[in-house]
Amino acid sequence: MIGGRRPLRGRKPGDRRVRVERPHSAYFRYTGPGQLTAKVAASTPTTPTGRTWAQVRRLLFGRRLSNEEDAFERLPKKLALPIFSSDAVSSSAYATEEILRVLVVGGASMIIFSIPVAIAIACLLLIVSTSYRQVCRAYPHGGGAYVVARENISPITGLIAAAALLIDYVMTVSVSTASAVAQVYSVVPQLYDLRIEIAIGAIALITVLNLRGLREAGLVFASPTYVFIGLGFLLIAMGGVQTFLGVATPHVPAPDSVPVGTQQLAGFALVVLLLRSFAGGAVALSGIEAIANGVPAFKPPESRNAANTMTMMAIVCAILFTGITVIADVFHVLPTQEGGATVIAQVAAAVFGDGSLLFLLFQAATALILFLAVNTSFNAFPRLAAILAEDGYMPRQFSFRGDRLAFSWGIILLATVAGGLLVIFGGDVHALIPLYSVGVFVCFTLSQAGMVIHWRKERDAGWWWRAGVNALGGVITLLVLCVVVSMKFVDGAWLVVVLVPALVGMMLFINRQYAASAGQLALRADQVIPPPRREERVIVPIAGINRAVVQAVNVGRSISDDIRAVLVSEDPEVAEHVRGEWERRMPGVPLVVVESPYRALTGPLLAYLDVLDQAWPPDREAPVTFVVIPEYVARHWWERILYNQSSSEFRRALIGRPNTVVTNVPYRREEPEAFDRQADPAEA
Amino acid sequence: MIGGRRPLRGRKPGDRRVRVERPHSAYFRYTGPGQLTAKVAASTPTTPTGRTWAQVRRLLFGRRLSNEEDAFERLPKKLALPIFSSDAVSSSAYATEEILRVLVVGGASMIIFSIPVAIAIACLLLIVSTSYRQVCRAYPHGGGAYVVARENISPITGLIAAAALLIDYVMTVSVSTASAVAQVYSVVPQLYDLRIEIAIGAIALITVLNLRGLREAGLVFASPTYVFIGLGFLLIAMGGVQTFLGVATPHVPAPDSVPVGTQQLAGFALVVLLLRSFAGGAVALSGIEAIANGVPAFKPPESRNAANTMTMMAIVCAILFTGITVIADVFHVLPTQEGGATVIAQVAAAVFGDGSLLFLLFQAATALILFLAVNTSFNAFPRLAAILAEDGYMPRQFSFRGDRLAFSWGIILLATVAGGLLVIFGGDVHALIPLYSVGVFVCFTLSQAGMVIHWRKERDAGWWWRAGVNALGGVITLLVLCVVVSMKFVDGAWLVVVLVPALVGMMLFINRQYAASAGQLALRADQVIPPPRREERVIVPIAGINRAVVQAVNVGRSISDDIRAVLVSEDPEVAEHVRGEWERRMPGVPLVVVESPYRALTGPLLAYLDVLDQAWPPDREAPVTFVVIPEYVARHWWERILYNQSSSEFRRALIGRPNTVVTNVPYRREEPEAFDRQADPAEA
Repeated sequence: MIGGRRPLRGRKPGDRRVRVERPHSAYFRYTGPGQLTAKVAASTPTTPTGRTWAQVRRLLFGRRLSNEEDAFERLPKKLALPIFSSDAVSSSAYATEEILRVLVVGGASMIIFSIPVAIAIACLLLIVSTSYRQVCRAYPHGGGAYVVARENISPITGLIAAAALLIDYVMTVSVSTASAVAQVYSVVPQLYDLRIEIAIGAIALITVLNLRGLREAGLVFASPTYVFIGLGFLLIAMGGVQTFLGVATPHVPAPDSVPVGTQQLAGFALVVLLLRSFAGGAVALSGIEAIANGVPAFKPPESRNAANTMTMMAIVCAILFTGITVIADVFHVLPTQEGGATVIAQVAAAVFGDGSLLFLLFQAATALILFLAVNTSFNAFPRLAAILAEDGYMPRQFSFRGDRLAFSWGIILLATVAGGLLVIFGGDVHALIPLYSVGVFVCFTLSQAGMVIHWRKERDAGWWWRAGVNALGGVITLLVLCVVVSMKFVDGAWLVVVLVPALVGMMLFINRQYAASAGQLALRADQVIPPPRREERVIVPIAGINRAVVQAVNVGRSISDDIRAVLVSEDPEVAEHVRGEWERRMPGVPLVVVESPYRALTGPLLAYLDVLDQAWPPDREAPVTFVVIPEYVARHWWERILYNQSSSEFRRALIGRPNTVVTNVPYRREEPEAFDRQADPAEA
Repeated sequence: MIGGRRPLRGRKPGDRRVRVERPHSAYFRYTGPGQLTAKVAASTPTTPTGRTWAQVRRLLFGRRLSNEEDAFERLPKKLALPIFSSDAVSSSAYATEEILRVLVVGGASMIIFSIPVAIAIACLLLIVSTSYRQVCRAYPHGGGAYVVARENISPITGLIAAAALLIDYVMTVSVSTASAVAQVYSVVPQLYDLRIEIAIGAIALITVLNLRGLREAGLVFASPTYVFIGLGFLLIAMGGVQTFLGVATPHVPAPDSVPVGTQQLAGFALVVLLLRSFAGGAVALSGIEAIANGVPAFKPPESRNAANTMTMMAIVCAILFTGITVIADVFHVLPTQEGGATVIAQVAAAVFGDGSLLFLLFQAATALILFLAVNTSFNAFPRLAAILAEDGYMPRQFSFRGDRLAFSWGIILLATVAGGLLVIFGGDVHALIPLYSVGVFVCFTLSQAGMVIHWRKERDAGWWWRAGVNALGGVITLLVLCVVVSMKFVDGAWLVVVLVPALVGMMLFINRQYAASAGQLALRADQVIPPPRREERVIVPIAGINRAVVQAVNVGRSISDDIRAVLVSEDPEVAEHVRGEWERRMPGVPLVVVESPYRALTGPLLAYLDVLDQAWPPDREAPVTFVVIPEYVARHWWERILYNQSSSEFRRALIGRPNTVVTNVPYRREEPEAFDRQADPAEA
């Protein structure tokens, strides 16, 4: 309402506290001339609904954090190892199974090949990690595939890497969650039917935690990894001993094991089979790049610590993965059909004894570390999205940080997409993995290639052998990439092959948009803007005469004396009546009636504005036309259906018109008295 | 863009036609001082997309019509009869089947009861029509149940009638369409699987025709009814003769006939069965009120002509309905399971000979008249909705007439709901009818009751026997209503019983809203509004400095000299840089930097506005605060994602603030040169 005393937000008028000496002290710290710093109070809502919402949010996400509170702590190796390697280590929970699933089809005689395949993958793992050591050295500020590729090769390559990474992170969430749930229902089969619900629930939980600004740090996050690694080694050791002593009781194949193929494979068919199993197991490498991205989090000397941690992790992964595979082979563990126990669960059951405490502990640790892996993606994805947004490749919102300094948009996007994938694929790990590996190896190849160029640029002592190492890594990962794409193409790899270019295209498109608008909005460097010497003209479209209209007209009058009210009406009689009313109540404000026999509202109004423009003397500069639109403030969603239909229609129609400024004058029904005071001549 | 020459809408600048003597002549007729009348040109769109849309619409719906073109023609009896009675007459296409479906369950011995039941219903029909004759007399301007009930009983009762009527119309569309399609697949069984598609297609077609402003008039609409009635009588006659001559070849029951019950019914069970069949057949009365609503369409003397037409129609309906029922009985026609031939189709086949030309003709006529019945609802529903909207019981939009003078909103709502019902009920007539009858009889009862009160008010000569007639009609229809509700409750009648109060509640709610807002907006009768004596203050929230901002600031300057730019920023360095830029480029416009460590935008801005208000000397009247928001005009939907996030956020937050006016200053990227001209000091 125009007029009347103004209450301080959220306080009743006349409230004592309103009359403080330095009025701004309630909301701001005064930090210099024309310089204020907002306190929390400044952004607390004032409406009841607003306040309840705020409370709900505080309950869910905790109190708002200021920028200063953005803590960044450095990690000692013994914490960095578990925290950064959860993703990589956890992949050994499903890699073995992927190998077996392929081989089993080939027949009983093929299963033994799981061991050489696993060893090959382990070597690959060591090679890739060694070449990543160098990324740690070269990029002490964190060398994600995006950065490395963009800086060394080209922006486009950077975007390709970025797209692959984004997909990679999404898949980490989907696969790890699915696998974690699989570990759960390996122990409690009844839960199989609830797997989707459980998975979604887990993702929702992690989403909330991350919106709270969860930091990956401290023992809470370190311990599960250590427990898993420890139990994993124990598993392998005990399994080994049992075999050595010959007391290994061969695992009774689960009743729902997948049928073992019978045909005799040889030649090409055999090669294909082995390659397919290799492509499947290659997923074991997922997540080993994590450390290279996180170098700054290490205690100095960052690079060396990171590099060493990297190697350590690689070795651990290699041992776990091959070990589990061997044991699985020794104990004749076969993958089961969808819904049955996972291979790793069967292995644990075979070695520790089904239902034993160790077994249960191991399963719990596996599930837990998989969820940790999910969480790492929840940290990485939004951060990458934010970097992309700042570089103008994604909508700006992705770089905005929420109340808890978390990149809310990225977190929510990740949760939605990953959750959607889980639902679509029915929470089946095996179905999801083909999409996974491709992204992983695209990133590997690109960052390795980037590194090669990096070293060539530097050309410092022994650059050629460093380049060599990365070149080797790059070539091998490229080969693996080809294998994975070709072998898993029909199984879903094609989707990624389509998705990556699509994403890149989208990012380029967005970038072009932002660049264009920036150009159009740019001022010439030397430009100094003088005060305008323009005339104004005010138009108030009205539907009748009421408080809202009066108020709008008064606002219009205060802008300019050249003011006209325009009534677009399809009914001449109504128009006549309004004119009578108007001339009686609004002396001095001309009313133009536009009869609209075709019942259109905006059309005639726009046309009338044009007519005014044409009538304007051509030799004088065009005036700014203010269209002042009375509005009835809606307090509920349904009020939008009942009111302001035409005013918002006007707004949409006028927003693009040259020389036109749209002014909305809201009428707030709360203060009719105030209105009377202001509009009553008795008070003049 | 502020500045530069303004093109006439849809024309290039400098276009010769722009400089006409009377500029408005292109769009308007000058009809007096401050009085214009828009031509079609005034509401033709100017953007390419807009124009293409307009073309598509013209193609679908035809050229726009002006209010003057709203033709209203009076109908001679011979046209009025068929046009108004299509709904009532068509119901005899399914009424008989409803009776049989119930009786068959009771067993072979029960089927013969169809004749007495049909006769009972026919009598009911004649009684109701006689009491409706009086509605015609009493309401020469058309007495729908809504009007009669509202005027004589109470507004609420009127609303109940209105709700029942709305449901009634929706059901007419669903049932008649379904039945029409059933007639089609009775002839071509293969089409059964396509029934939903056909039905939806038909509704879509009728919708488009009605959006075109289709008028029910002329022989086109009259003939099918005559053909149907003619063939119907012929059917009955031929059937009668065949029976009389004993040459009637009893109809071989269709293979998919519903199984005939075997149990022996007696006593209560028997009564219930008969009542159920009666309740089913009662649907034959649907639509007989149509004439009473359409009295004004008759040639004078309207009332008498309408009344007589009413009687004629009633007699025709009674004959057709009972006749068909008798023939069906004589020829041992049984209803078939879902998907089989309709009873009326079987009767026609039996009498005319299956596949004979007469048979096909009859089926075609039946389908056609059913679609006519649908069309009557498409005329009645939107008109009623419009009346309700004008009385403030439905959103105003329902009283707006589209390009072709049709009430577009009502038409589309009807089509959607009726279509939805068809899909939900799988296009099964039998399943839909229970919902139908309830609405029909609620209207009958209410309008009869209303009439009784009407006559008591009038109290003119012989009022008591007129009242008596209506009382009789009312009591009987009320009884039938009870029968229908109780007998068909579980079959779907309950839905209507729930829906009517729900609709009434909704309409009352809407009405209260409009009443409230009208009250809040009303001006005191004597109130004359003086020019305002208020100061203004301008705030321009900015995110940086660019053309859009400069433009906004210039608009602000033209409103008032008390202007401040406000930068809400979470990053002090950015803020510092902007300030530097600002002071260099915008001399004389103070910039206030509000640091927002909690990253909130609107909160601190609102808080700052409050601080300004508090600082204002308490003894002076509050100024109007103009918040001038720079906006980057979006041309595509995706631009809304990329730009103006915060400006629309500001707008939402400010729209409800006291003393505050939101001004959007759109920046149109098309005219950067114009901008330079305007903003360049060299041109000063």
